[in-house]
Amino acid sequence: METEFIHRIRESVSDSSPFVPLGIGDDAALLATRGNDTVVTVDMLTDGVDFLLEQADPELIGRKALAVNLSDLAAMAAIPTAIVVAVSLPRKSCRTGVGTLSTLELAGKLFHGIQTLARRYDVAIAGGDTNSWDGGLVLAITAFGKPTDRGITRRSGAKPGDRIFVTGPLGGSLLGRHFTFEPRVREALALNARYEIHSAIDISDGLSLDLSRLIAESKCGAILWETAIPISDDAYRRNDSMTPLEHAIYDGEDFELLFTVSPETAEALLRDQPLEEPVYEIGEITPGDAAIRILTADGVMIPHQPRGYLH
Amino acid sequence: METEFIHRIRESVSDSSPFVPLGIGDDAALLATRGNDTVVTVDMLTDGVDFLLEQADPELIGRKALAVNLSDLAAMAAIPTAIVVAVSLPRKSCRTGVGTLSTLELAGKLFHGIQTLARRYDVAIAGGDTNSWDGGLVLAITAFGKPTDRGITRRSGAKPGDRIFVTGPLGGSLLGRHFTFEPRVREALALNARYEIHSAIDISDGLSLDLSRLIAESKCGAILWETAIPISDDAYRRNDSMTPLEHAIYDGEDFELLFTVSPETAEALLRDQPLEEPVYEIGEITPGDAAIRILTADGVMIPHQPRGYLH
Repeated sequence: METEFIHRIRESVSDSSPFVPLGIGDDAALLATRGNDTVVTVDMLTDGVDFLLEQADPELIGRKALAVNLSDLAAMAAIPTAIVVAVSLPRKSCRTGVGTLSTLELAGKLFHGIQTLARRYDVAIAGGDTNSWDGGLVLAITAFGKPTDRGITRRSGAKPGDRIFVTGPLGGSLLGRHFTFEPRVREALALNARYEIHSAIDISDGLSLDLSRLIAESKCGAILWETAIPISDDAYRRNDSMTPLEHAIYDGEDFELLFTVSPETAEALLRDQPLEEPVYEIGEITPGDAAIRILTADGVMIPHQPRGYLH
Repeated sequence: METEFIHRIRESVSDSSPFVPLGIGDDAALLATRGNDTVVTVDMLTDGVDFLLEQADPELIGRKALAVNLSDLAAMAAIPTAIVVAVSLPRKSCRTGVGTLSTLELAGKLFHGIQTLARRYDVAIAGGDTNSWDGGLVLAITAFGKPTDRGITRRSGAKPGDRIFVTGPLGGSLLGRHFTFEPRVREALALNARYEIHSAIDISDGLSLDLSRLIAESKCGAILWETAIPISDDAYRRNDSMTPLEHAIYDGEDFELLFTVSPETAEALLRDQPLEEPVYEIGEITPGDAAIRILTADGVMIPHQPRGYLH
């Protein structure tokens, strides 16, 4: 099983990455990291939590397993270089959103989804570990990136007075965008190259929860301007007990960047709008102890209790 | 869940590793890799395949999840530096070899097992991803190492005429050693520092299968000297339909090093016996196309069909 899958991967993986002088086929891979530190992140996705295998296209599951890692690298403003992939496959054939698949067919589709996105971002697949078991599908990708000479962006650099930005409309990603989102790698690199980014995080568990993490690391508070929060069309389509604004604040898996800059940089950003899609100024950083307040449409300031999408 | 666990990890993890300038608490970790390439390996362990949670001590499961990775780094003669840990925990409390444990209790014991071994090898825990789900226990550790100035040892360097060595007796690890084995990190570094090691692999799936992998990568053949193969006491204790020798050849998870050296180096090794425990010369590399033959106790040469412990 492992051997056959590794052969297939090995054949299809380019040996040409300058970041992987030694790839699949030995006990470990070698990453070329001279002259640079390495940014590393890991995400594990499981059936029933991050996807429903029975309803999903396995290629999109593979894609997502890589995309969430690229989103983490984007939040650090690192250039993605390589990944290692670990997967545990159901031993028996199983129902998926594209029909019943054997273990090997499932593996092939997962891998194809990973590989397609990896090529798009010029990311080398440096190694992996493939297993089968009596349990459900699990994928864990560890991704590597290298900082640019502008350095990395961290959660901990927000300063009182900073303006808070997001790279796109929020909410309702469960309608499909959580599979198909484009990780904000290029956006992060473009922003970090041109502007002084004080702090950044990617929105994986919702604006509310991820902003609370950013200000906790930065030892600041924050005010969200309710009327400024961009609400995605998907959030309007949810049509349930939550308002579209609540979806934008609490839904997870938007995978937009949330970042802070000085008021002067904020002005420049809004003037330049340097990305293909607009960036949105949605609030400001305050002194204080990691508390979030919301400035409502009525001009009232109300305390906000962080909560969000805990998978 | 994740937040609480990360807090616990964060508190208990030393911030002092020179290899991890930025650890847990951001979207990704930063590994200090300047001046060296990075060796990277990943292993995913699942319930029912690599351990039986119902019968096992979770601390030993955590230990094993790290130890198998350290064994891969040993096979490359790399100095372990850091790991990232991904785990998916059963959402409900579950029976283990040390009683019924809540999700958080299980996580704590797994982590303690990882941490204890990590400290022993001075390995920093740089990051992780903790989840819970309705499935069984899954752990995936990605481990990083740095080559010494002697370079790494690979599977692909064996040459016809090389002698084949192992670092210890084989077989019967299922009786317990597969949980408690000491990864051959120090041994690999000591050997690589003093001798010209042509090729190396760790024995995870059995002497038969791992030797076949080594010679496949080296494009050679091999002869195993049946009477020279060191058989572990555990192999004798198995007391089943396989002979102790068969256990030594086919059982997996010995995690001893299998390596090849020139005949001259072999002489020096046997004369010096430079490790605490003896190294064993068990055969030789031949020209040929990845075929293994066994020289039996009767002096007969028989073809060998590689098979082994496929978890």
